[in-house]
Amino acid sequence: MANDSWIPDYKPSSDFSLANIPFGIISTPDYQTPRPAIAIGDSALDLKTWLATINEEKLLDVFPGVDIGQLNHALNQPTLNTFAALGRPVHRIVRNGIQELLRRDTPFQQLLRNNEEARAKALKRLSEVTMHLPMEIGDYTDFYAGYHHAYAVGVMFRGPENALQPNYMHLPVGYHGRASSIVVDGTPIRRPVGQILLDPKAEPKRPMTGPTRKLDIELELGCFISKANEMGEPVDVKQAEEHIFGYVLLNDWSARDIQAWEYVPLGPFNGKNFGTTISAWVVLADALEPFKMKSEIENRTELQGYLKEAGEKGVFDIKLEVDLTTADGSTTTIGRTSSKYLMWSFPQMIAHHTLGGCPLRPGDLLGSGTISGPGGVEERGSLLEMTENGKKEVLLAGMNTRTFLKDGDSVSLRGFCADNGSGVRVGFGRCAGTIYSAVQR
Amino acid sequence: MANDSWIPDYKPSSDFSLANIPFGIISTPDYQTPRPAIAIGDSALDLKTWLATINEEKLLDVFPGVDIGQLNHALNQPTLNTFAALGRPVHRIVRNGIQELLRRDTPFQQLLRNNEEARAKALKRLSEVTMHLPMEIGDYTDFYAGYHHAYAVGVMFRGPENALQPNYMHLPVGYHGRASSIVVDGTPIRRPVGQILLDPKAEPKRPMTGPTRKLDIELELGCFISKANEMGEPVDVKQAEEHIFGYVLLNDWSARDIQAWEYVPLGPFNGKNFGTTISAWVVLADALEPFKMKSEIENRTELQGYLKEAGEKGVFDIKLEVDLTTADGSTTTIGRTSSKYLMWSFPQMIAHHTLGGCPLRPGDLLGSGTISGPGGVEERGSLLEMTENGKKEVLLAGMNTRTFLKDGDSVSLRGFCADNGSGVRVGFGRCAGTIYSAVQR
Repeated sequence: MANDSWIPDYKPSSDFSLANIPFGIISTPDYQTPRPAIAIGDSALDLKTWLATINEEKLLDVFPGVDIGQLNHALNQPTLNTFAALGRPVHRIVRNGIQELLRRDTPFQQLLRNNEEARAKALKRLSEVTMHLPMEIGDYTDFYAGYHHAYAVGVMFRGPENALQPNYMHLPVGYHGRASSIVVDGTPIRRPVGQILLDPKAEPKRPMTGPTRKLDIELELGCFISKANEMGEPVDVKQAEEHIFGYVLLNDWSARDIQAWEYVPLGPFNGKNFGTTISAWVVLADALEPFKMKSEIENRTELQGYLKEAGEKGVFDIKLEVDLTTADGSTTTIGRTSSKYLMWSFPQMIAHHTLGGCPLRPGDLLGSGTISGPGGVEERGSLLEMTENGKKEVLLAGMNTRTFLKDGDSVSLRGFCADNGSGVRVGFGRCAGTIYSAVQR
Repeated sequence: MANDSWIPDYKPSSDFSLANIPFGIISTPDYQTPRPAIAIGDSALDLKTWLATINEEKLLDVFPGVDIGQLNHALNQPTLNTFAALGRPVHRIVRNGIQELLRRDTPFQQLLRNNEEARAKALKRLSEVTMHLPMEIGDYTDFYAGYHHAYAVGVMFRGPENALQPNYMHLPVGYHGRASSIVVDGTPIRRPVGQILLDPKAEPKRPMTGPTRKLDIELELGCFISKANEMGEPVDVKQAEEHIFGYVLLNDWSARDIQAWEYVPLGPFNGKNFGTTISAWVVLADALEPFKMKSEIENRTELQGYLKEAGEKGVFDIKLEVDLTTADGSTTTIGRTSSKYLMWSFPQMIAHHTLGGCPLRPGDLLGSGTISGPGGVEERGSLLEMTENGKKEVLLAGMNTRTFLKDGDSVSLRGFCADNGSGVRVGFGRCAGTIYSAVQR
């Protein structure tokens, strides 16, 4: 595929290159119904509106073998759930067709490039569109597959001898998260109030109630489910790829002091459920396929059969970055890592999640767990690690320092895959949120 | 209100008495669209169909002040979410109106009692209807508010000195559960396969994968949310009653061996997410109001302000029973307790859940946690407690014994409030499920 597009100002080095074609839900000031779109360069193609301008026969040329009525129905929804449920073979044809439509030497010139009416109606600048949550998220599960994060946090709380729990190398540890507080890129996040034990050593223990003093981020990769499995029917790890729709960046905001007091014995609750931010554009599984690799984490434990994958390439080399912008407007990149440090692949997570028969549904979201690299503080995916739980300061631009987040701080995650040979880039766009002050009590 | 109804075969001692009027979602062989109904005695009144037979003016007599168009819309849905979202004042008027409609000396004789067409269309025997999940459940949260259960399990695993974690008396401990595997009464439950550590003392630890050997029940009360709170906006404990739609029985099936290996440090996951059964009929909050009482559990800990309720009566005296039926058809009541042993009220759980701003939505489900009484094994809400984690057998009818559940076993929860003065009973109907065999591997 020639990597060049007729889209105005198109650059192959855009996050939303022709090699990407991510899907999202947009609205515009003149047409406020949320609807499916794809991103290309600095533009969005409103799929619902575009499909309505083209007759069905011509669409079959672009999307051969696809049930156009079904596709039309799926792209007339306010979320991508129905489209996701069409399955990965359909996503593949649709993405390929859109790539054909958008490349400079497109064989379908009359359907968009040279069709002024369709262009005017359906092609929007990204700066003009409002992004919405791409999926209606039924259930959200957060895993803990970032080995270096799990190890570093374990050392901090239990010492190097017992850093990892005995189950860690045997199964992808995960827990159920809160779906109702997942928000799209750009949504402000309120500093949560919670019960906090300021002095853990004093007896009797006397918690207080107040705004968190340890507001943190968690740099994660999110995975959306496309194909459902029936309750009672596990998904085979070798079939699990067919159940994946695509990927987003995910920031699982965390209040470390609330979490520390509440989490024994049933796990994190109010320390996490006040907000989780995801990037707006879903990068389809096929767009990331060229960037698959073997995990950097070697697991010498003999795996249970249900976790054994067919090949070795289970994870992606997605470069990940964390920017922190303080209220004075100065920005510092405080973390740089890669998703190649995940110890478990998403197919393994899906196989484990469904082993006992738990049904996954289209739109369900799986988080990878915080991703950190093996190096120093600059490779960490959480402030907890960067500051050793608040003991050390992170130095920022503009003479600023931080242990945890202050009101007015913005955190923005970025992620991209780059093929150095071709200059092609597949990126996620932004996953950002700004902290505002807690409820006054 | 005279406690007698013109409904055929009506008895005030029915679970679904005139004092109850629970809401559910039914379908029938001749009309398969799921739709809202109420239960009365051995009958169901199909509200969607009934409303369609009555003109709007007359409905205003039955439901004074209610927006009839809005009510019609809410009762034309396949779940009760829209009706729940109308708010507790509307639920109160609708329940009162239906009570008036159904009592023997109803002032609305022409609307149903003496209206043959309406009766034929809308009044069904319960034995003829199929029940569906009453709500679309966005998020499911399971608390741990049953004091005697938490204490007994704590003693079993950590000894009496450390039975309760330090946070237990300060906050309603809870965790996020799995919404996708919540099923309605009668749905079969497949024995889950999972990772199990058969010998926890051997080093290195070698888990195996297989069907759970410790399949258990958890006797709980479930609470459905009606009114949403905005993200970032906590619900005051004194306003929390207005956010409650009603209650169901809940069996949080648990695989104790899977849970034991997986749950550190992030809490239960596959040990719980293979299935949760709820009773089909939602008992409205107002129907339980006369049975409110002070919790039997004294908490001498000074509560944080946000957990302090206006009155003392926070819990209900709902008598709870667990029946176990083995494959040979013999039934034993293995547990008898009451929801008065919950240490935290649902308004306290709601205040805690939303303290950091977590949004609750109509249809969200809160579980109480397993409810056990202070007495012997016959007052326990789980086999884990009854058998001391499999060490002792429970004796059953028909020469049977159990430590944990076998394939073919059925467990049925029952719950009811009884006013000994008037003979009035408000009950939940059945919450049952039968175990079938695990996936062959």
